[in-house]
Amino acid sequence: MKRYKKRDFPVSEVRRFLEPGPVVLVSSAWKGGRNIMTLGWHTAMEFTPSLVGCVIASGNHSYDMISRSKECVINVPTVELAPIVAKIGNCSGAAVDKFAKFKLTAVVASAVKAPLIAECFASLECRLVDGRLRDKYNFFIFEVVKAHAPAAPKYPKTIHYRGDGMFMVAGRSLNLRRFFRPGML
Amino acid sequence: MKRYKKRDFPVSEVRRFLEPGPVVLVSSAWKGGRNIMTLGWHTAMEFTPSLVGCVIASGNHSYDMISRSKECVINVPTVELAPIVAKIGNCSGAAVDKFAKFKLTAVVASAVKAPLIAECFASLECRLVDGRLRDKYNFFIFEVVKAHAPAAPKYPKTIHYRGDGMFMVAGRSLNLRRFFRPGML
Repeated sequence: MKRYKKRDFPVSEVRRFLEPGPVVLVSSAWKGGRNIMTLGWHTAMEFTPSLVGCVIASGNHSYDMISRSKECVINVPTVELAPIVAKIGNCSGAAVDKFAKFKLTAVVASAVKAPLIAECFASLECRLVDGRLRDKYNFFIFEVVKAHAPAAPKYPKTIHYRGDGMFMVAGRSLNLRRFFRPGML
Repeated sequence: MKRYKKRDFPVSEVRRFLEPGPVVLVSSAWKGGRNIMTLGWHTAMEFTPSLVGCVIASGNHSYDMISRSKECVINVPTVELAPIVAKIGNCSGAAVDKFAKFKLTAVVASAVKAPLIAECFASLECRLVDGRLRDKYNFFIFEVVKAHAPAAPKYPKTIHYRGDGMFMVAGRSLNLRRFFRPGML
């Protein structure tokens, strides 16, 4: 599988990858263990600090690892990984090491202990900054403290979950800059 | 402009439209006024009750209307409306009636006072259920109490914001049901 060569980019720009709504792979680590989960319920929340809100249901093996380590990496996969993304979402890290099972490459992160996934297009190192809504809504607010992505392509073919086993693949780009006021871009 | 003929569908299924991450038009009403805002920062949060979290920055005219009325309608537009979606996001409801300016049809909702937008594909009537994170993060948690969409097409051509005036148009569908355990669909 292709491993993307990434470079750092400003954390205030992570919305470029998250706002279109791709399914992401969240990697985590705790006490020698590591895991990956597939996640579709997330939203950008702020540019600076760079905040992302994620719903991580308590039944997931990753829920405890992220709750305890207070860290994770949000990795953005592209369509080539689609079958693996689906399979990762349909098995539990309590039973298998998903990096080994799916032949994914764990890369050491710079600011968190959770590993980056080399085969994903973008990787966002995150620290938990607000868990107030965790118990009631499984909602975690993370700050992206380090962001990695290749310089090109600018618009990767991400996959977007529609429910019921169906995904949407990112389609064509539409430039509507002419309708924007400069401060609104 | 085409007005979609909608029928009710179960509120537990709204993720079908929201989870892929489309830009939405949020309509609101308060004391004889009404407004529409363009919004890209939202996430599904729960199936039952059907919860959606949205970031609505306090600078928006809609922020006060939604804070006061504790209601809104989340409308999902398709690519035909893209220029209007961009324009709605680049003017203020404090200065103009956006329904009139953009020739959009306000339809009376059944559970909230905010109007549905007939030209949007899906319309989700929402009540504010948790505003605890509003002051700190501009984050509103809504319950979808009534949902409307046409029976077909099943997968509308939604638009997804990439930042910098660029949108992504929903592309092809990918069926990965074969990788799902029944309970995970």
